[in-house]
Amino acid sequence: MNREMPIFQPKDAAYAERVHASFVLQQAMTLIGAELAVVEPGYTEIHLPFKPEITQQHGVIHGGVVGMIADSAAGYAANTLTPADTSVLTVEYKLNLVAPADGDRLVARGEVIKPGRTLLITRAEVFAVKQEQWTLCAVMQQTIMAMHGKKERV
Amino acid sequence: MNREMPIFQPKDAAYAERVHASFVLQQAMTLIGAELAVVEPGYTEIHLPFKPEITQQHGVIHGGVVGMIADSAAGYAANTLTPADTSVLTVEYKLNLVAPADGDRLVARGEVIKPGRTLLITRAEVFAVKQEQWTLCAVMQQTIMAMHGKKERV
Amino acid sequence: MNREMPIFQPKDAAYAERVHASFVLQQAMTLIGAELAVVEPGYTEIHLPFKPEITQQHGVIHGGVVGMIADSAAGYAANTLTPADTSVLTVEYKLNLVAPADGDRLVARGEVIKPGRTLLITRAEVFAVKQEQWTLCAVMQQTIMAMHGKKERV
Amino acid sequence: MNREMPIFQPKDAAYAERVHASFVLQQAMTLIGAELAVVEPGYTEIHLPFKPEITQQHGVIHGGVVGMIADSAAGYAANTLTPADTSVLTVEYKLNLVAPADGDRLVARGEVIKPGRTLLITRAEVFAVKQEQWTLCAVMQQTIMAMHGKKERV
Repeated sequence: MNREMPIFQPKDAAYAERVHASFVLQQAMTLIGAELAVVEPGYTEIHLPFKPEITQQHGVIHGGVVGMIADSAAGYAANTLTPADTSVLTVEYKLNLVAPADGDRLVARGEVIKPGRTLLITRAEVFAVKQEQWTLCAVMQQTIMAMHGKKERV
Repeated sequence: MNREMPIFQPKDAAYAERVHASFVLQQAMTLIGAELAVVEPGYTEIHLPFKPEITQQHGVIHGGVVGMIADSAAGYAANTLTPADTSVLTVEYKLNLVAPADGDRLVARGEVIKPGRTLLITRAEVFAVKQEQWTLCAVMQQTIMAMHGKKERV
Repeated sequence: MNREMPIFQPKDAAYAERVHASFVLQQAMTLIGAELAVVEPGYTEIHLPFKPEITQQHGVIHGGVVGMIADSAAGYAANTLTPADTSVLTVEYKLNLVAPADGDRLVARGEVIKPGRTLLITRAEVFAVKQEQWTLCAVMQQTIMAMHGKKERV
Repeated sequence: MNREMPIFQPKDAAYAERVHASFVLQQAMTLIGAELAVVEPGYTEIHLPFKPEITQQHGVIHGGVVGMIADSAAGYAANTLTPADTSVLTVEYKLNLVAPADGDRLVARGEVIKPGRTLLITRAEVFAVKQEQWTLCAVMQQTIMAMHGKKERV
């Protein structure tokens, strides 16, 4: 299908600072060790180095942790496109885990598919990277709600 | 709708010990502070006390953490019904976050809807409990795969 | 889990007439032969008799048709709770097909889980009924958006 | 994200004939007027001309019909990659309706994301085409199960 990625024009020139400022307040992201590595209009990447504390019973990264970074990457992708006075919240998402998250790090890529005023539809893909071999380990489809006039607490 | 909950007959008499033994190996569950509080045929509960480390930017528990315990509660509900030599893995789930996870603890209830041999369909509901007031904060629908002959590592 | 079904208070006393009037305008429902059999606050049922025209290659009712009536039953369940000047639209749904839709008729039951002002979260279950034996054949979880001030065309 | 589409090698040289033979047996596809227009390894397209019989109450094509062709396009995309003696069934899908299906025809594009032996993960996009203007109206993520040794009835 190889769809051309749409070119998005952010409504808030300071979108990147705003999104980074929100991310650092998410203590749960600090707990698992996630970093917001890339922030572009309609697109973000979250990187997550392996550590034993985030594994499941087979020693690879927990599927729930995969879901956390997929959800966040796509949610922040939506947040790059909302006005400065608008926060976002996840209405719902659907995640397929397609391979074990067996890597020395994970890379979650979130992108906006359809930027509506109230609802934004997004997607994420998560890759497990092991000695620079990339394996797709999860795909997600998500609905985000824009809360106009409700600025993120910073 | 108030559907009668089906009565499930576990194939493995030691299902509860098996499920508990798997849960304690999930370091990610320890990291967030989750406990497997109830294990019954086709049903489990995961309880999660509030702590600042698992919050998002508004000070309530992170939606990704809500997803983690919903996923686990329903996955272990499936695991109670599989044979002793069988492990389970999450194929996919879909989660609606319907209210902020604002509580002094969360309770995730997972249940099996349809126990197939290869695939088990499950549901979960997560409640935020604040001074004994229960608020539904998430609902999930999930597909679990049984890996026959692949015992959980214990 | 056997959750008590919440008691919903409709905002529009004429909700049932309004919902029936909308349903009869859906030519696609006429095409497949679906009827809106039950309309209660936060709950509807759609009944669909078997006919060869709605089957798939194995002779049972097509999964897509199962999805159509699940979507509609839950969407109209949401519509019973919205004000008179408000139409609803399906934001998204997730459907698990858990058994072949092998029946002389199908019954789709839609119910509201969480009635928000802008978004309503719903669920549906579809049963295949064969000689009065009921088999669960699909479960669905759905997000509905209320369009305030946009009355249904009647 | 603009992911390169993977090159899939079909296991059955006669995959296209097999898939077309299955499609024509789906009476529900005939009823709505859908045609299987493109069949390639890991990819199919279903085209659906507008007709009043498949509309909802606002005169555009019914969301349930959009779901039917999305489900079928992606399911048949999976079916192109399975062995000759294998049928497929939809385990589940999640569909976001992102714009009204307002077109003189719809085009559903299904593609395989991850071709596992037992489970295949797929995606679909549906476009409404109106005077050759293409509008994305739905995105879907789906899980398909391969039933080995269960040939499609033809």
